[in-house]
Amino acid sequence: MNAGRPAPATPLVPVLAIVGVGLIGGSFAAALRNCGAVGRVLGVGRQPATLARACELGLIDEAVTLESAADQADLFFLSTPVGATETILSRLKPILRPGTIVTDAGSTKADVVAAARTALGAKIGQFIPGHPIAGAENTGPEAAVASLYRGRTVVLTPLDENTNAAKSYLTRVWESCGARVMAMDPRVHDTVLASVSHVPHLLSSVFMWQVATAHDSDIRMALAGSGFRDFTRIAAGSPEVWRDIFLANRAAVLAELQEVKAALGRAEQALQDADGEELENFLERAALARRFWGSRSGLT
Amino acid sequence: MNAGRPAPATPLVPVLAIVGVGLIGGSFAAALRNCGAVGRVLGVGRQPATLARACELGLIDEAVTLESAADQADLFFLSTPVGATETILSRLKPILRPGTIVTDAGSTKADVVAAARTALGAKIGQFIPGHPIAGAENTGPEAAVASLYRGRTVVLTPLDENTNAAKSYLTRVWESCGARVMAMDPRVHDTVLASVSHVPHLLSSVFMWQVATAHDSDIRMALAGSGFRDFTRIAAGSPEVWRDIFLANRAAVLAELQEVKAALGRAEQALQDADGEELENFLERAALARRFWGSRSGLT
Repeated sequence: MNAGRPAPATPLVPVLAIVGVGLIGGSFAAALRNCGAVGRVLGVGRQPATLARACELGLIDEAVTLESAADQADLFFLSTPVGATETILSRLKPILRPGTIVTDAGSTKADVVAAARTALGAKIGQFIPGHPIAGAENTGPEAAVASLYRGRTVVLTPLDENTNAAKSYLTRVWESCGARVMAMDPRVHDTVLASVSHVPHLLSSVFMWQVATAHDSDIRMALAGSGFRDFTRIAAGSPEVWRDIFLANRAAVLAELQEVKAALGRAEQALQDADGEELENFLERAALARRFWGSRSGLT
Repeated sequence: MNAGRPAPATPLVPVLAIVGVGLIGGSFAAALRNCGAVGRVLGVGRQPATLARACELGLIDEAVTLESAADQADLFFLSTPVGATETILSRLKPILRPGTIVTDAGSTKADVVAAARTALGAKIGQFIPGHPIAGAENTGPEAAVASLYRGRTVVLTPLDENTNAAKSYLTRVWESCGARVMAMDPRVHDTVLASVSHVPHLLSSVFMWQVATAHDSDIRMALAGSGFRDFTRIAAGSPEVWRDIFLANRAAVLAELQEVKAALGRAEQALQDADGEELENFLERAALARRFWGSRSGLT
């Protein structure tokens, strides 16, 4: 993209540290590299093989320890399962340099804010919680692509302690990845995500589990078509990541699930009554809403 | 595809009549045209505008009455909502020529078999019930594509009255569309389809309805991402078609729904108990099954 143009003297992110170099972290690095917004990318993680692969793929320049990353990084991007956030931030606290900004990509935010306050104490102002609304069915560094965040929404749930400078810096970083940034309260974020992300994942997984464990699962799988494919796509996601999401956002997910079960009860009653008009009304409302959303979402 | 090769003297289907020229019927015509297996295609339907559009798109050669189609057709393909099957077959009975084969694309089969027996009486041997496991989120003749059935499964639920010649003829016709044909009992078909197609459609639609009717649906829709997109894609399907499917396969759908609700109850209990191990086990079983299916299904 930058062929023929001189590289800027100082990139937006001179040194980036990614903790957890999978789909999300790897795509963040790739997106920033792609637009010339990053100088050097350091990778931190538990699994040497994953980090080696991320190096081979050119997502990171070097695998380093958390300590070495803290010495060098201008921006930390945490893209581990949300359950690991508090441990990592606790280890970061004593070694974090004053100018470094830390953000995350966790799918829940109220728990991350609480964990960050506990872990970082007086350094909490350096942490800006975030959640890019983007994903893919595959996981790991191989699945990372520079385009993952293009046209997608990134939610930031800034803290009172964050400076305006830090917030606009992180906004600019996400915008260089092609994303649009929205700020909101962490509890609102969690309630909304319980509805549009966590409950569908639970339903898709429960359904997939039920089909897979049925005595006649072979014939079921053989006759499963494109509707099944789409409906169950999210069930292939990382069990560890999703366990943490469900535990972290338990109350909101359980509350939202009651609403869905109530709606299901009404549809089931209409079916039991063979009430074609009621069934068609509800199917039509759902179809119109989905078509309208599809035409507006920008998601192909 | 046939450039340079002479057209066969008599195509496999000299005259094809499509009743209901939407995605399914239009794609059947397009697939057969594409491989030179059809001579002339007649379209029958309630809506003149749809038939005119199908003509413009080259899916059919001419819009005709059911009577005129019965006079000419070698093969009838019924691709209307399943609720209309009995009426159409009743009208066909007195005018159906002895050599003509009739098949359908209905998503339920036991009800179609019963309706066909009632409607066709002594001519029942001419009707071979079928169900191509293929679809798309869009409907209507504009959505029709010659590739819809390529690599997909078509279930036939033949009757004792069908001749071997008729069954192998219809199998060859579907194979020219690129499909593979499986024969099975109509009740087995309906139970399996309740599981892998009808229940997911119900869950997706119920979920979409619940999100769309929530007081804060705007912010929910704004934060809905690719998981939501995939999970709700089927909810955009035709309300009329799906109302008929649910009514026709009511008992099997209700029975299957109980199984899914029982599984959901177990997952909900694990969540209530904050039982991370149980949650991860169930998520992992689902993820492995989905990934395995995805690698085998041939559906991209």
